Amino acid sequence: MRLSNYFLPTLKEIPAEAQITSHRLMLRAGMINQTTAGIYSWLPIGLKVLQNIERIVAEEQDRIGCHRVLMPTLQPASLWQESGRYEDYGKEMLRIKDRHDRDMLYGPTNEEVITDIMRQYLKSYRQLPQTLYQIGWKFRDEIRPRFGVMRGREFLMKDGYSFDLDYEGAKETYKKIFESYLVIFRRMGLTAIPVRADSGAIGGDLSHEFQIVAPTGESTIYYDESYDSLPLQDMTFEKLQNLYAAADEKHDPNNCPIPANRIKTARGIEIGHIFYFGTKYSKAMKLEVAGPNGEPIIPEMGSYGIGVSRLVGAIIEASHDENGIIWPESVAPFQVGLINAKTGDEKLDSIAGDIYQKLNNQKTEALYDDRAERPGVKFSNMDLIGIPWQVIVGNKTVEYGTVEVKNRQTGERSDISIEECLNKVAKQYTQRISEGLQENENRGAECI
Amino acid sequence: MRLSNYFLPTLKEIPAEAQITSHRLMLRAGMINQTTAGIYSWLPIGLKVLQNIERIVAEEQDRIGCHRVLMPTLQPASLWQESGRYEDYGKEMLRIKDRHDRDMLYGPTNEEVITDIMRQYLKSYRQLPQTLYQIGWKFRDEIRPRFGVMRGREFLMKDGYSFDLDYEGAKETYKKIFESYLVIFRRMGLTAIPVRADSGAIGGDLSHEFQIVAPTGESTIYYDESYDSLPLQDMTFEKLQNLYAAADEKHDPNNCPIPANRIKTARGIEIGHIFYFGTKYSKAMKLEVAGPNGEPIIPEMGSYGIGVSRLVGAIIEASHDENGIIWPESVAPFQVGLINAKTGDEKLDSIAGDIYQKLNNQKTEALYDDRAERPGVKFSNMDLIGIPWQVIVGNKTVEYGTVEVKNRQTGERSDISIEECLNKVAKQYTQRISEGLQENENRGAECI
Repeated sequence: MRLSNYFLPTLKEIPAEAQITSHRLMLRAGMINQTTAGIYSWLPIGLKVLQNIERIVAEEQDRIGCHRVLMPTLQPASLWQESGRYEDYGKEMLRIKDRHDRDMLYGPTNEEVITDIMRQYLKSYRQLPQTLYQIGWKFRDEIRPRFGVMRGREFLMKDGYSFDLDYEGAKETYKKIFESYLVIFRRMGLTAIPVRADSGAIGGDLSHEFQIVAPTGESTIYYDESYDSLPLQDMTFEKLQNLYAAADEKHDPNNCPIPANRIKTARGIEIGHIFYFGTKYSKAMKLEVAGPNGEPIIPEMGSYGIGVSRLVGAIIEASHDENGIIWPESVAPFQVGLINAKTGDEKLDSIAGDIYQKLNNQKTEALYDDRAERPGVKFSNMDLIGIPWQVIVGNKTVEYGTVEVKNRQTGERSDISIEECLNKVAKQYTQRISEGLQENENRGAECI
Repeated sequence: MRLSNYFLPTLKEIPAEAQITSHRLMLRAGMINQTTAGIYSWLPIGLKVLQNIERIVAEEQDRIGCHRVLMPTLQPASLWQESGRYEDYGKEMLRIKDRHDRDMLYGPTNEEVITDIMRQYLKSYRQLPQTLYQIGWKFRDEIRPRFGVMRGREFLMKDGYSFDLDYEGAKETYKKIFESYLVIFRRMGLTAIPVRADSGAIGGDLSHEFQIVAPTGESTIYYDESYDSLPLQDMTFEKLQNLYAAADEKHDPNNCPIPANRIKTARGIEIGHIFYFGTKYSKAMKLEVAGPNGEPIIPEMGSYGIGVSRLVGAIIEASHDENGIIWPESVAPFQVGLINAKTGDEKLDSIAGDIYQKLNNQKTEALYDDRAERPGVKFSNMDLIGIPWQVIVGNKTVEYGTVEVKNRQTGERSDISIEECLNKVAKQYTQRISEGLQENENRGAECI
């Protein structure tokens, strides 16, 4: 993408309304624009990051045999009256009347709709187990929306729902998704800590929040120090079940199963939540299948959420410096930021244009800053928007045939030949693509 | 995908509520499920088709230099009060009050939001021209929703908006998008006829509806017979401007510029609509940029819609037979339907499983019917859901090493070796992927 043609409206000023880093940086980097309180438009590079996150989530859900659907944003109130949640939900649920005065709502979550779908099609135990998921927009009418996409009103969520024949089956599904979540977050450069959450009377130990560590996290988490030394293949449900982790409202220092000197403390941001809730919805909404001998079975359900739009903010909270965002390669809007230090110089224009063409040919997504701006403006702009690799074409390129390559994360710079540079970023790209697969193969995850 | 694990709830009965073919077939093929009047959930194969259509639209919009954004579904009423459309829009606009009693609405279209975005960032004539588009969910509260996704209330639309410095620029943008639409529809196996539409006083001749021909179309269109013999490279704006085409409400047989014997009549389904509307919104909402000498310029706008969810139904209306859907390769949920005629037979299971694995390895998306069902059930199921290629593994496979390959569209069958079969579908797949590019290269379209 040539920046001169693109729509990347970066801001110089720090927007006054933004209280936290990710919100400030997303506004400054031209990723989002507020349409009204807690409701945002996603501008081109913001949407690219959002779609990258969405893709990783979908790939990993598909890989473990979940099937993707898409439910509508608006739902009839009648389904929620059936489940008994319509009155309970309070003012966070946006209630709507259509032109025929029918009660509708903008779905804050979808247990009712998915159960309604399944009761129309599930007849026999042979059709189970089954896990469906969607990545769709939800609405929660927060009384005081803030922190940009971290606590917006309209937000994108992956919500999955499982249907099993019995508790044992439901637990197996839960474990599989638990482990898949760790892979998903790892692919985004995040280490997530699953913290046991309250699931009321039903779930027992089958409810976890996934927290990532970030200095600006909303809550404090306390966890066993050995988390920090776990390789991914050790991050199984069984192992992690036995490692202590709790959020502040649950952590009691006087009643903690591990010694205080083994406990680490950090700020955490919740990016996922999974729970088993048995037959709560299937019973209320009369979802039933026939068992092997014709006996009725009420499927056991669980639900599994990931805050997809929230993750955009959460990743920034976890990965930035004073100059701007530092995108992990897997979610970056572009892999390479190509900077022409002297746009208008015939030789440099020709060389940079040629490198840009070659990057396109090898399918490396590049943002080419071909604007007639001072080099300093271009450098700080690339730092701000956080492209992983900066490739700078300048006087040395004409003289020695080299470009300067800067790694946004480490700050490391090297002068290398154009050819070496193209190989390097191409290799990086291939590595990024195969990374998810590789991590799964290491774990022996099955491919459906 | 193994069908035994999949969620593909096909129906044997013809659903009573469905009045038109596409609605009936989408319900029978397990593509959609009605959540409430005019509001649908997309089940796995329905969503796959929807996403394929979305991908083609996005690729072609990107190719001509449009930039993708995503606006929210909910908008503040205040923007529509500014443009003057809030009162005018009537009951099709879903009006909502949030918990603070603020007036909101579910966007039926997005001229106001995009103009609001642009007025915050556009300062100079140097930033233009610019065309942004999104593929997002809209809501129109139809008084009597019907025909499934063809006239639903919640629907997916591509809506694009252009900003130019003057009429000449706006016209150039209009032409570019006009031609891109023809490519988009062609890639989906559709021949679209651009019919001049009423655009009130402003647009002059710059408003077109794109209609596809289908026996069940909602309106009658009259068009110059030479349309049918135009190769794609002839389908330029200039050429088509001079060919007659009109919908019934505009066609006057007593006042038609071409002789009656050159006119063809067909039923048409509207799948796109583009129009230029000058400074209507930019003026009302005070969008202004500084010209070369600092003088204020009010950008000229246009908007460009494609009914993405509607296209799923429209393609089926244009492409089906008495046995079910016939998907064009480019949008099909799977390329190959692999049928094991005798699941449970050890040899056939092994051969079919092996072919399935090879199809996966070569990235040919295959749906493998490995269920313990009668062959007849499997055949009619594959016909119903419309997978382009059926590959049947049966007794002949054990005896001669051949599989039967059936083309869903032509009905043509051939017994070929497994290797030849794999080559054939792989080639087909590659061709499908490069098709769009090729068509554009033929036209000399620029790649941004």
